[in-house]
Amino acid sequence: MENVKIGIIGIGNMGSSHAVYLNNGEVNGAILTAVCDTNPERLQWAKEALGENVQTFDNVEAFFEFANIDAVIVATPHYDHPPLAIKTLEKGLHVLVEKPAGVYTKNVREMNEVAKKSGKVFGIMFNQRTNPLYQKLRELVHNGELGEIKRTNWIITNWYRSQSYYDSGGWRATWAGEGGGVLLNQDPHQLDLWQWTSGLMPKRVRAFCGFGKFHDIEVEDDVTAYVEYENGATGVFVTSTGDAPGTNRYEISGDRGKLVVEDGKLTFWRLTQSERQFNKEYKGGFGEPECWKIDVPIHGEATQHKGITQNWVNSIRFGTELLGPGEEGIKGLEISNAMHLSAWTDDWVELPINEDLFYSKLQERIKTSTYQKKTVANKTLNVQGTH
Amino acid sequence: MENVKIGIIGIGNMGSSHAVYLNNGEVNGAILTAVCDTNPERLQWAKEALGENVQTFDNVEAFFEFANIDAVIVATPHYDHPPLAIKTLEKGLHVLVEKPAGVYTKNVREMNEVAKKSGKVFGIMFNQRTNPLYQKLRELVHNGELGEIKRTNWIITNWYRSQSYYDSGGWRATWAGEGGGVLLNQDPHQLDLWQWTSGLMPKRVRAFCGFGKFHDIEVEDDVTAYVEYENGATGVFVTSTGDAPGTNRYEISGDRGKLVVEDGKLTFWRLTQSERQFNKEYKGGFGEPECWKIDVPIHGEATQHKGITQNWVNSIRFGTELLGPGEEGIKGLEISNAMHLSAWTDDWVELPINEDLFYSKLQERIKTSTYQKKTVANKTLNVQGTH
Repeated sequence: MENVKIGIIGIGNMGSSHAVYLNNGEVNGAILTAVCDTNPERLQWAKEALGENVQTFDNVEAFFEFANIDAVIVATPHYDHPPLAIKTLEKGLHVLVEKPAGVYTKNVREMNEVAKKSGKVFGIMFNQRTNPLYQKLRELVHNGELGEIKRTNWIITNWYRSQSYYDSGGWRATWAGEGGGVLLNQDPHQLDLWQWTSGLMPKRVRAFCGFGKFHDIEVEDDVTAYVEYENGATGVFVTSTGDAPGTNRYEISGDRGKLVVEDGKLTFWRLTQSERQFNKEYKGGFGEPECWKIDVPIHGEATQHKGITQNWVNSIRFGTELLGPGEEGIKGLEISNAMHLSAWTDDWVELPINEDLFYSKLQERIKTSTYQKKTVANKTLNVQGTH
Repeated sequence: MENVKIGIIGIGNMGSSHAVYLNNGEVNGAILTAVCDTNPERLQWAKEALGENVQTFDNVEAFFEFANIDAVIVATPHYDHPPLAIKTLEKGLHVLVEKPAGVYTKNVREMNEVAKKSGKVFGIMFNQRTNPLYQKLRELVHNGELGEIKRTNWIITNWYRSQSYYDSGGWRATWAGEGGGVLLNQDPHQLDLWQWTSGLMPKRVRAFCGFGKFHDIEVEDDVTAYVEYENGATGVFVTSTGDAPGTNRYEISGDRGKLVVEDGKLTFWRLTQSERQFNKEYKGGFGEPECWKIDVPIHGEATQHKGITQNWVNSIRFGTELLGPGEEGIKGLEISNAMHLSAWTDDWVELPINEDLFYSKLQERIKTSTYQKKTVANKTLNVQGTH
């Protein structure tokens, strides 16, 4: 296949970043041919920044009818990811959706089904899967080095956002516009990496959220969640956009020791024997298995968004494996939906969640919202190094 | 006052350790004069190890009638702490109780009331309060350096215990013998330091426990708890005796940054301005307040048990302030009781807890227990460096 001709729907914060690196020829075998946005200012920017060879559209109908494209990146607000991805796939085009896969699993599941039937390459922008730290962590878990998992614990409070961030877009941090806060906007990466690296999906979830706790917003900016897995292991997930400086520390403990990712380092406290075996056989009262602290060497660099786009383009061209298959987007989203539902019902939520209940509870929040944005700038923010 | 003549009730793991350093003259102004234990083997050990000048008693009635003592250290299994402390105080003697203050707050409250009326010096063995790390942490919180607290998070899973530990005493890890597991035996220090350093008691508690999850015991060896404080701050407490190697990481975040105690170090990420103020005033979208990472110098060493005993003896002799006032023992215990109650009822527990409900739920567990210890060694373990 020659160059994959790519169109982008939504050229706000993320979409414009994709547009720029594609237009600079930084992705092999890909060429940016069209962009689409309903905001005239963004189209004006596109004309100036991307040049005359890139078509611009102010509505998706025209985009799908007239754009010269093989594949589409969907970088709109979250609610539109599934319907636009479905539309793209139904047009016989490949699609790469920004995270999160959507706002509720009900229509993400539909998107997955359409994708499956389409035979097209369906990716999701899980750029943090390109991080060799998490790749190595996943490898050590998946190849059995850690043994059976006992506990996971992710403190991911380093998503600090000031009020001006929330004021930068009318859709931001509203039930109608985003369908959630830190869980939907900032955490899709961690919620995905949590299940991807551990290989475990929770069996049940219990969460406590602060809604507009640190900011003048109506959605959650503070979450503490506890989960149980099928094998009896437990997990904790704490997140916030109100802590400065926050923490990003992810620990997984297992039968053969403990893995911790923090400060860009992966440390493996590796037992020289199984703890479960030691527990049974040791007769000395106090005492624990011998443990080696290992600084795990990490090779390579995270190729991030560009890496995911390259990987998706390669898959289109050569049929190679996707690092972020689109169908997997539902996993982190289901955990996110379960956390919301648990906070709303103040109760445990079993997985798979009741999708209709979640959807109706979300609609309630949209309909009864009395929140009014005080200042809306609709600014496009520089996202360099933030997502 | 001349030397304080000290008697010890209970010379198992902890009591024998107190006996040895007192008998070696390592506490100024104190002299060990008597010990009491119902176990003949322990009394035999006392005769051999402590010499002829130390009286030995095999029952507390005789001990209180005939021992030549001014003050008593109560180092029995937990249930007996309040009744023996009350007895000691009613005899007009000073008392130092081992942690925990008791098993349920109902009778610990009674002990506190008796102590208050007695005018005697009533201490509790919160030896970890002698640790300059936690003293400095407390100072930085209490003098306002951290600003208003937003979040606390203690992962204290480095209380690893093997099955042989639990098998070393018939009372261990049973509802009848200890009234709980990791919360009652290992965590009283952290539960105390959690409230002592933060200056906050939870308003409500939600906890999830694994009972006999990692060991053949009937009580909890795995706890995940979430709390809310009066000011809206939240906290997480995760503990276990089944993780090897465990983690001991305590984080407090506040308006002026973040404090972390880990690996024997205290680190202060200190903002140069209030985050709440920055949040309101900053207009740049992404961005956060300037932060300085500070390795806080720690001076001195933890004097541990001997330090607490010395401090208690000084208070008896000179009226100096106690580092671990006995009345404060109820605080950590109430958090512990609330965690149990929450796990048993699978619901939130508000503080102050319903003490009668807790007591009756505990009695249920004692009465309906079907747990049988398979092997009981009644070994006295060397506790050097473990508590």
